[in-house]
Amino acid sequence: MNKRIIINFIGKIILIEVMLMILPLLVSLLYGDGDTAGFLFTMIPAGMIGGLLMRVRQKQGRMNSRDGYFIVAAAWIIISLIGAMPLYLNGGFPTYWNALFEIVSGFTTTGASILARPEELGHGVLFWRSFTHWIGGMGVLVFVLMVMPMENDNSMHLVRAEVPGPTAGKLVPRMRTTSMILYGIYTAMTLILIFLLVCFGMPVFDSFCIAFGTAGTGGFAVSSAGIAGYGSLAIEVILGVFMLLFGINFSVYHLIMLRKFKEAFCMEEVKVYLSIVFLSTLAIMFNIAKMAGGFGHALRQSFFQVASIITTTGFATVDFELWPEFSKHILVLLMIIGACAGSTGGGMKISRMIILTKSFVAEIRQIINPKEIITVRLNDAAVDKKTLDSTRIYVAAYMILLCLFTLIISLDGLDFTTNFTAVISCFNNIGPGLAKVGPMANFSVYSDWAQVVLSAAMLTGRLEIFPMLLLFARSAHDR
Amino acid sequence: MNKRIIINFIGKIILIEVMLMILPLLVSLLYGDGDTAGFLFTMIPAGMIGGLLMRVRQKQGRMNSRDGYFIVAAAWIIISLIGAMPLYLNGGFPTYWNALFEIVSGFTTTGASILARPEELGHGVLFWRSFTHWIGGMGVLVFVLMVMPMENDNSMHLVRAEVPGPTAGKLVPRMRTTSMILYGIYTAMTLILIFLLVCFGMPVFDSFCIAFGTAGTGGFAVSSAGIAGYGSLAIEVILGVFMLLFGINFSVYHLIMLRKFKEAFCMEEVKVYLSIVFLSTLAIMFNIAKMAGGFGHALRQSFFQVASIITTTGFATVDFELWPEFSKHILVLLMIIGACAGSTGGGMKISRMIILTKSFVAEIRQIINPKEIITVRLNDAAVDKKTLDSTRIYVAAYMILLCLFTLIISLDGLDFTTNFTAVISCFNNIGPGLAKVGPMANFSVYSDWAQVVLSAAMLTGRLEIFPMLLLFARSAHDR
Repeated sequence: MNKRIIINFIGKIILIEVMLMILPLLVSLLYGDGDTAGFLFTMIPAGMIGGLLMRVRQKQGRMNSRDGYFIVAAAWIIISLIGAMPLYLNGGFPTYWNALFEIVSGFTTTGASILARPEELGHGVLFWRSFTHWIGGMGVLVFVLMVMPMENDNSMHLVRAEVPGPTAGKLVPRMRTTSMILYGIYTAMTLILIFLLVCFGMPVFDSFCIAFGTAGTGGFAVSSAGIAGYGSLAIEVILGVFMLLFGINFSVYHLIMLRKFKEAFCMEEVKVYLSIVFLSTLAIMFNIAKMAGGFGHALRQSFFQVASIITTTGFATVDFELWPEFSKHILVLLMIIGACAGSTGGGMKISRMIILTKSFVAEIRQIINPKEIITVRLNDAAVDKKTLDSTRIYVAAYMILLCLFTLIISLDGLDFTTNFTAVISCFNNIGPGLAKVGPMANFSVYSDWAQVVLSAAMLTGRLEIFPMLLLFARSAHDR
Repeated sequence: MNKRIIINFIGKIILIEVMLMILPLLVSLLYGDGDTAGFLFTMIPAGMIGGLLMRVRQKQGRMNSRDGYFIVAAAWIIISLIGAMPLYLNGGFPTYWNALFEIVSGFTTTGASILARPEELGHGVLFWRSFTHWIGGMGVLVFVLMVMPMENDNSMHLVRAEVPGPTAGKLVPRMRTTSMILYGIYTAMTLILIFLLVCFGMPVFDSFCIAFGTAGTGGFAVSSAGIAGYGSLAIEVILGVFMLLFGINFSVYHLIMLRKFKEAFCMEEVKVYLSIVFLSTLAIMFNIAKMAGGFGHALRQSFFQVASIITTTGFATVDFELWPEFSKHILVLLMIIGACAGSTGGGMKISRMIILTKSFVAEIRQIINPKEIITVRLNDAAVDKKTLDSTRIYVAAYMILLCLFTLIISLDGLDFTTNFTAVISCFNNIGPGLAKVGPMANFSVYSDWAQVVLSAAMLTGRLEIFPMLLLFARSAHDR
């Protein structure tokens, strides 16, 4: 463990968060909603602490992969603890733990809320809440690397620990460039979305917040009416399409920028992703046609909801808790699968599902033809042994943690469907679950301690399990 | 594919089933319950077909592992199809598919029933229904190998495909001897149990049926009152202890017979198994103490239920559907974990859980100390790469199939908790689930087609996924 590097880095992260808070502070001043003091009381002490920590320096410090995991886990916890302060200080949240749940839900792009009526919050806090989706979507550390360059080896460890998916992907190896490309694409797409939303009649403030929620695949709404409140087919279609776009592996956009169209459109993960979206939309459409009053309405509802759930955004235009069981079961399945690796979406990731399914088929073929040498391939390249192993272990860990988290929050006394889908929803950073945490309900049904447990589930899910566990494992093995 | 060997073998299996039916036929004659005709109408044509198929012979035929998987899968389907006939012919089951569900539930030792009042069946059919638990518990093919010796290599393939658990275990390599040892221990323990049950006041007929259900970890009761109907603490304790004993890896008993006490008592899997039983019993006891009216009653209920669920037997003395959510969640977890490998119990098996957890810890340690060479060990021996791989793939396949089966039966329109726990219950061969398939309910809530799907889930679970899938995969890869 290189303690000085870690402390220095955490100082940097705190300062960056303080800088990012300037935006909601300005919004708060603009609307004069009285949230200004809450932001200042957070930013000034946090800024001082961050500045002090940054003074701890070390020349030519080198990080190992373990330090990388540690920094990522610690950074996410610290920005959440600080980020919850303005929410708590400005009222609207009964306890600090409620505010923490809300902001962890923001940074992890979960979008699960404990608020029945978010419109009662001030504009500054509402903006900050949605802005955390945008920050968390692409990754806090990736942002830091873009703003403050550092040694390449070190940043590699950080990116590997923070960017979701089984492999770090095809992006360029120079980390600062990678971060800039990623954030460049991300910002451009967000701005286009804001522009379109404003054009189609969404209020400007809402457009920013909803676009942040879409880009980060988060899902916080700004009013209790949700997306349905705008009552516009165009807005629903635009959001549906953009949710899907933000759920695609960002290296596709990079390839398109490099004019490598053939490579971009041949990515197996994206093809599977779009096929799943297509089939699920179709299946749900037929299943709910009668209830929705015709195929047109059914298609509109099912497309939006499929896009919202598979990308783990969690916006809702309809109370899918009332849908037939078959459709609800499909949604639960989509929740687990999740979006593409290297996107802002959560879940288990499509590429992991492909690798799993293929290694399963390979096992069966191996039994049939014991002498054949069978390799698992993804995007026309053989998946190496290490990725294969860690994918399988990831899935096993995923399952064990799912069971454990469900067991722990069952102590709060709610029913199995609620607990299980709440944990799936938090762990995969989706937002709504079923039953008591359905799309039109909220997470205030859970008590404070259960909300803290669910916050831990969100962080563990967002960082794909290992960084969080290492945080607890490290003291035992430290040497 | 060696077709002649396969046909010959299936002939043998049918004949053995016909011979096994003599026992319920005698019971039926003894009680004069009118079931005799139903048995004869099944046995005579089946016996003729079996005899014909057995005439297909081949000298020095050799089987490969794929033929082994195929025979096992085909055998289980065929004995189920034939075994359902007496149930259907003797009435009591509205359709043949209901009878098939019931008998698949018997052979796979699931114990899920569609009958609200089993006591309305005749004695012969009741006996056959419970007897299938006993036959299925140790394995149909293992029984065949004991009665009809065959080439050692060939029988190895069969045993590997039929006996549950990640490895074939420590039993002696000569397969006929193995089968005899297994069935010897199994029969002796069953007889002791019958003797004890009769001593403590259970009617003789019930003692046989309940002992079959306990030995095979099946769980069919003979009356709607279930085990609670006997109202005897002694019987509950005896059954609780024997369920746990039948859930232990049978190689432990073999080691004890060989006087290798040290080895027997050091088996890691058994230690973990007993620890889980102990901790779960304790946790549930405290959780239900108030409701059960004191710790004594709570202990009695929780011990019996934990033993019944972890061994996947599924007997119930109390409606645990009414327990607090925490206790119910523990039971769902135990359902998934299951009993020891090499026992008659189902589920994912304790040894798989150990291997998974350890390889997960190993992965974390590997991140912390990248240069260390870390091996996963079970029972003080390193787990080889092949077992490790297939365990991980098994778990992944398990999860995927769990989701798919749940999705399919959701078309029947029941709620998520019912569907999910029904599939877990069938797939792990337990019996009861929660909500509408809780311990005091039955599976008649599902329509015929859903019962066939659940039957497929039971078979796939009992044969640990691969044989059943190979059955469908083979045509594509046949050459």
